[in-house]
Amino acid sequence: MTHILVTNDDGVSAPGLLALAFEMQKVGEVTVLAPDRNWSASGHVKTMHRPLRVKEVQLVDGLSAYASDGAPSDCVALALLGLTGEKFDLVVSGINPNANIGHDVTYSGTVTAAMEAVIGGVPGVAVSLDAPENHLGVLDYGAAARFARKIVETLLSQGFPEKTIININVPYLPEGEIKGVQITRQGLRLYRDRLDRREDPRGRPYYWIGGDAPTGVQEDGTDFGAIKAGYVSVTPLRLDLTAYQVLESLDLWEW
Amino acid sequence: MTHILVTNDDGVSAPGLLALAFEMQKVGEVTVLAPDRNWSASGHVKTMHRPLRVKEVQLVDGLSAYASDGAPSDCVALALLGLTGEKFDLVVSGINPNANIGHDVTYSGTVTAAMEAVIGGVPGVAVSLDAPENHLGVLDYGAAARFARKIVETLLSQGFPEKTIININVPYLPEGEIKGVQITRQGLRLYRDRLDRREDPRGRPYYWIGGDAPTGVQEDGTDFGAIKAGYVSVTPLRLDLTAYQVLESLDLWEW
Repeated sequence: MTHILVTNDDGVSAPGLLALAFEMQKVGEVTVLAPDRNWSASGHVKTMHRPLRVKEVQLVDGLSAYASDGAPSDCVALALLGLTGEKFDLVVSGINPNANIGHDVTYSGTVTAAMEAVIGGVPGVAVSLDAPENHLGVLDYGAAARFARKIVETLLSQGFPEKTIININVPYLPEGEIKGVQITRQGLRLYRDRLDRREDPRGRPYYWIGGDAPTGVQEDGTDFGAIKAGYVSVTPLRLDLTAYQVLESLDLWEW
Repeated sequence: MTHILVTNDDGVSAPGLLALAFEMQKVGEVTVLAPDRNWSASGHVKTMHRPLRVKEVQLVDGLSAYASDGAPSDCVALALLGLTGEKFDLVVSGINPNANIGHDVTYSGTVTAAMEAVIGGVPGVAVSLDAPENHLGVLDYGAAARFARKIVETLLSQGFPEKTIININVPYLPEGEIKGVQITRQGLRLYRDRLDRREDPRGRPYYWIGGDAPTGVQEDGTDFGAIKAGYVSVTPLRLDLTAYQVLESLDLWEW
């Protein structure tokens, strides 16, 4: 039976994790080990300067889970290093309430959890929902979770590509309005960060990285283009960041 | 005049940063903005959930610098968003006392600082020294800093490749024994992490991610192969993580 580790970067009590674990239980045996707090935009972390704590908790749907004070990638490392005494065939991370597209993938705790899995030799899948900015009320993760399950089932039956992170982004639409799945390349995010300088009550400055929510280049064949056109985007990502074309030209220079 | 931002992930008072800033002052005008503490293996962070503080400090060689309580990538973002009122032509990060090769590049605060620069549209260079594990006493960063300067001068005169992070790793050898510069691809790290379970004085478990220092696959043409053969390794890295070959095969599947 397929043994699946479910984690996320929003913390073990986030509703997106519940929805994902619920669907993954239809695919195999599920163990949840996730951070005990929110680690959004935390990047790829390996905590070695302090020890990590892990406690058992019960999620609102009754599923038992482990919560760690480490980052998402630490949770994956702990599990793959044998914390629970189990072996894992697959790591699925999410569901993040915001899309992880373009350059987001290097900042994203959701994606770097899947990255840590692949470095550890286990297939890794990241799942994110493109919920509208400033969304009020409860997000519906159902459609995203069901699409994630179908995509994982296809990957399991066809065989996961080696050394590849599968990055899934789902548009926030009623399930019937989603047009299908597109295999995409990483697109371009356009960040609109601004520095916001303020003064504290003692007159000392502090700074927010503020500004508007990022947008992106809406191009066919990209993650951003797919979700904006109503498709679920599936992007295969690799661990080798080498810029091979640049390498060839640098190699001709006099060093 | 070239305006260079120097940062690191070991903190503003680290000797590797001093050595790098010293050499970069021969290339252009230098501003130092670095974390006020060590952020090793911190990954690519964008701090938006709390404000950041910045204070002016003086380094031991008299150079004035800015110290921030953000991560290395936050320091770069703060600088590029205009904190100091200056424009930057180049960001150089380091010198890290340990090599950043293979999969290290996604964990590395040193490399993700350079990555943040490139996302912000400014060339980014990461510099690391392959100092021996368990090195006692003071490390000599002189050779690494001088090689970094020469490589940056070559890149400035030939033109930095677009959207490319330059990842430099220098073997820990006397300068005369370094054989030259090799342009390399990202190699394979072999991590040897082990979970170390302990109990606190109250009998509650805690966990260290321990084990032995990582090694690597010593292959010609790779970052690890180059430094182990006595060369300075220069690896061009890109922001696009798409696994293009996998993409083509996934595109043929039924989804």
